[in-house]
Amino acid sequence: MQHTKSYIKGAPSRAIICVSDGTGITAEILSKGLLTQFEGINFRQMRFPFVDSPEKAMDCLQGIRDARRMDGVRPLVVMTMMNPEISAILRQEDAHFLDLFDAFIAPLEKELGVKSAHTVGRSHGQTSHEYTNRIAAISFAIAHDDGITDSDLANADVILVGVSRSGKTPTSLYLSMQFGIRAANYPLIPEDFERDHLPDTLKPFRGKLFGLTIAPEQLHLIRQERRPDSNYSALDTCRQEVAAAERMMRREGIKWFDMTSRSIEEVAVQIIQAINSKSRPGYFG
Amino acid sequence: MQHTKSYIKGAPSRAIICVSDGTGITAEILSKGLLTQFEGINFRQMRFPFVDSPEKAMDCLQGIRDARRMDGVRPLVVMTMMNPEISAILRQEDAHFLDLFDAFIAPLEKELGVKSAHTVGRSHGQTSHEYTNRIAAISFAIAHDDGITDSDLANADVILVGVSRSGKTPTSLYLSMQFGIRAANYPLIPEDFERDHLPDTLKPFRGKLFGLTIAPEQLHLIRQERRPDSNYSALDTCRQEVAAAERMMRREGIKWFDMTSRSIEEVAVQIIQAINSKSRPGYFG
Repeated sequence: MQHTKSYIKGAPSRAIICVSDGTGITAEILSKGLLTQFEGINFRQMRFPFVDSPEKAMDCLQGIRDARRMDGVRPLVVMTMMNPEISAILRQEDAHFLDLFDAFIAPLEKELGVKSAHTVGRSHGQTSHEYTNRIAAISFAIAHDDGITDSDLANADVILVGVSRSGKTPTSLYLSMQFGIRAANYPLIPEDFERDHLPDTLKPFRGKLFGLTIAPEQLHLIRQERRPDSNYSALDTCRQEVAAAERMMRREGIKWFDMTSRSIEEVAVQIIQAINSKSRPGYFG
Repeated sequence: MQHTKSYIKGAPSRAIICVSDGTGITAEILSKGLLTQFEGINFRQMRFPFVDSPEKAMDCLQGIRDARRMDGVRPLVVMTMMNPEISAILRQEDAHFLDLFDAFIAPLEKELGVKSAHTVGRSHGQTSHEYTNRIAAISFAIAHDDGITDSDLANADVILVGVSRSGKTPTSLYLSMQFGIRAANYPLIPEDFERDHLPDTLKPFRGKLFGLTIAPEQLHLIRQERRPDSNYSALDTCRQEVAAAERMMRREGIKWFDMTSRSIEEVAVQIIQAINSKSRPGYFG
């Protein structure tokens, strides 16, 4: 069980139970988004993925009952179930149900004038082409992590630059994994700042460079985890590197994004927007 | 624009437009799940992330209008917007709206007995601890990709084994990125099959080994992309390696998952279930 926010002493406790006949990732993402809207309650999240048989539904039903007894209030149950017979089993318990498919599938059937397939697991398949493309993008991101190799940068869709631990690696990987984008990343290091120009390797690719930056205080905390009490992690070093990197990016006309109060997902989507803004403002895809 | 399935000649066309004041990833995942339920329509997806001002909503409104004119039918608009004033702008157009927050926030307010914050972007922040943990897990996965290093395997939460291109790398990365799990991966190579035992490095960690396998035909296609018409990618090689790997995993009692018709997300969640099944059957978190 996982508390979705930090625990508030004395506040009431409430279970939020994500149930799906698939991975439950959709239910989980939605429930996190919804719960951030409510303060003063200690939510704890439970997950029941792959509930695709009456037996598994009975286990889950027991989980809902236990949670109810423990908290003394109705649990919230976020469901993405294709099979109405299985969701009916869960609905025997007195809980607050948020049923994603129930809310949207019936109105969609009417709008589209066709019946839905109501089959299980269909959303989890992927075409071989999509899969292959994603795998290739991930391999590319790993091969071009942290400036490991200069070769093949011409085939990158984007090249992220920034100081060490500014978030380049996770952002590159997220871009490749979620969107199949070939993202290389290249560190800006003290030597670059001394020479006061971009690494030569990057110069031919100015059009696909994007920068990441981060508040020096946060960078300091992240670097402390890696090499505690070193010159590398000293707050003063972080301040100097971040200032020098931002100066260089500004001068070179590299658009950059601040990771300080943004998630990896958010910056990744902003980068995609920036890539596409030249051709079709407002959307990408 | 992106066709969510392969194009069906002669079938009607319909836009599905994901609008959010955040990244729009929740809306996108839900819309993909819903659309797999409907056959015989050429859906094309458009995304409008970060719609957090009346001006951006007006741009998006124009996009909805254009899509309607192009298809001659109402677009589907999947929304996750916290600000009702901004969603009201979009609702001026005649479209089929699927409003995630609208459907669930009001009933939740009643259930919880508290008003929602209705603030923008709250769901996108993350605590520094979560972020640091995720970054550390991603670094771990990269450092331990493809058996690069044997050191520190004691600190892995899981070690994935399987033949080259069976999906170990993307699955390890997904586990680290989505769940903060430290996942190493280790290839099973022809030499291991000749010796007919697990690599010695892995023997102390039998308890956290999980296997991946894949149909030889699909492996052949994936390897062809990497090294076309090589011995490595030959169908016969793929058949032999997969059979040998499955034989070894069976003998060593390593639980394995078949990637052939499953997505990376699905296998990742199944691995987490398997990790936790000993302590708390049915859920993890």
